[in-house]
Amino acid sequence: MKIGIIGLGLIGGSLGIDLRSRSGGVASSQEHYIIGISRHEDTCKIALDKGIVDRASQDFTALSDAEVVIVCSPIAAISSLVEQIIPYLNPDTIITDVGSVKYPVVKSCSKLWSRFIGGHPMAGTSSSGINAAIPNLFTGAAYVFTPTDKNNAEDVAKLKKIALDLGAIPYICDAKIHDRAVSSISHLPVMISASLIRTCLQEESNTLDLAQILASSGFRDTSRVGGGNAELGVMMAKYNRQELLRSLYSYRDNLDSIIDLIKQEKWQDLEDILKSNGEARPKFLN
Amino acid sequence: MKIGIIGLGLIGGSLGIDLRSRSGGVASSQEHYIIGISRHEDTCKIALDKGIVDRASQDFTALSDAEVVIVCSPIAAISSLVEQIIPYLNPDTIITDVGSVKYPVVKSCSKLWSRFIGGHPMAGTSSSGINAAIPNLFTGAAYVFTPTDKNNAEDVAKLKKIALDLGAIPYICDAKIHDRAVSSISHLPVMISASLIRTCLQEESNTLDLAQILASSGFRDTSRVGGGNAELGVMMAKYNRQELLRSLYSYRDNLDSIIDLIKQEKWQDLEDILKSNGEARPKFLN
Repeated sequence: MKIGIIGLGLIGGSLGIDLRSRSGGVASSQEHYIIGISRHEDTCKIALDKGIVDRASQDFTALSDAEVVIVCSPIAAISSLVEQIIPYLNPDTIITDVGSVKYPVVKSCSKLWSRFIGGHPMAGTSSSGINAAIPNLFTGAAYVFTPTDKNNAEDVAKLKKIALDLGAIPYICDAKIHDRAVSSISHLPVMISASLIRTCLQEESNTLDLAQILASSGFRDTSRVGGGNAELGVMMAKYNRQELLRSLYSYRDNLDSIIDLIKQEKWQDLEDILKSNGEARPKFLN
Repeated sequence: MKIGIIGLGLIGGSLGIDLRSRSGGVASSQEHYIIGISRHEDTCKIALDKGIVDRASQDFTALSDAEVVIVCSPIAAISSLVEQIIPYLNPDTIITDVGSVKYPVVKSCSKLWSRFIGGHPMAGTSSSGINAAIPNLFTGAAYVFTPTDKNNAEDVAKLKKIALDLGAIPYICDAKIHDRAVSSISHLPVMISASLIRTCLQEESNTLDLAQILASSGFRDTSRVGGGNAELGVMMAKYNRQELLRSLYSYRDNLDSIIDLIKQEKWQDLEDILKSNGEARPKFLN
């Protein structure tokens, strides 16, 4: 399959590496031919030198015979890129993206291109850029696609095949459900973790000094995502704003319940909550 | 030094192991003689067999010539144990404890025994019991002591020496400041993490199913302490209730500020907070 990848960073580059080298372990399967697009000449050179792509170009004309185009840009640029590449595409081309929020992306891109199908490979590292691209990034990871009623089953099957070739596990779901789920387990944690760091920093200086000395694994783990990539945190909040606010309101209600239990010294109720949490948590860990 | 350890679990047992084998690396330093006390005959046997103590007894009379007694029981039992051992002690004996909350413990125990000095070695594992006791548990860890104006400097120096013999780093501070600091960096994270798990579990079933599939390291880390030992979580809340409520109110204010920024789409302000968090967090990590 001829696959175009727009944006050769961590995700785009890692997709290139694995799609070039794999066809899901099926010997008879046709290998993929990867066309990489980057605005930067340097990135194109590195992509070719490292064998990340078969062809690299700064020019969208290179996409003219691609069966599938994967837009691997930050969320803010996706629909603008889709608009820009349309004049160069074959009408049968499927476009997908890798953004971590799906509803607003699908909403705007489906209007531009009927064969657009939202995608979200759930993998990454804390690094970015073409030199951060690595093999096997998607092995065992969930790869979510969010087709609408208007997409055809064949196109969805093609994307699922790409996910399988990457060693990922494809899931099909509604874009809204996706955004709600990632809000709970990914975007909400960033905001509650950020609020923790902020709270600790507001302690008076003698308490803060001691807190910094005494902080150990509990603080380290709970504060990790709130002290991470700021641009990414804002992007999530901006594009998944409605679902994130919903999660935050629900979270605040739960926090208030726990505050009330402590205030009213209802220790058995608090213990019941902590126990049921302990029992439920493993279902979220794979 | 003759040191009594009451309660031979993870902490008491690990103290025994390291105090028996070490004297702070000083060759001329006098070695410690460890008297272990447990209610359970089996635990006494194991402690002797494993070389955790020099002498093990179910009887407080064994403490009659101890210079220092370390009470290693759950917080709820500390002051009752201090009361019970008093009839057996030499008046010069220093009593300390290892509880994770200091103000209420120091308040009640100082009334019972003028040479009581609160202690908190900041180390542990998720295991418990005599068989969980390990060497080097306290190496490099903070060991906080919270003497009052009424304690004498010589007694404090003796406890600091014990901490140094363990390879730990002794800190002296006010009990209230200690409780405030551990509330921020240890007890508060448990409650905000517990509220996260609770919020996710309240999602509708199709969102919850997907959330469980998609949850990765962000959820895993932020939810860890909220899905941990329920009894310990309640104990912290119960004994550090006032400071924990204070932390929780301050936390809720910070959470509300972040909710407001997202509601009002003040993205630059949100990015500034996340960035300053990222810069401040390393100061809490050693």
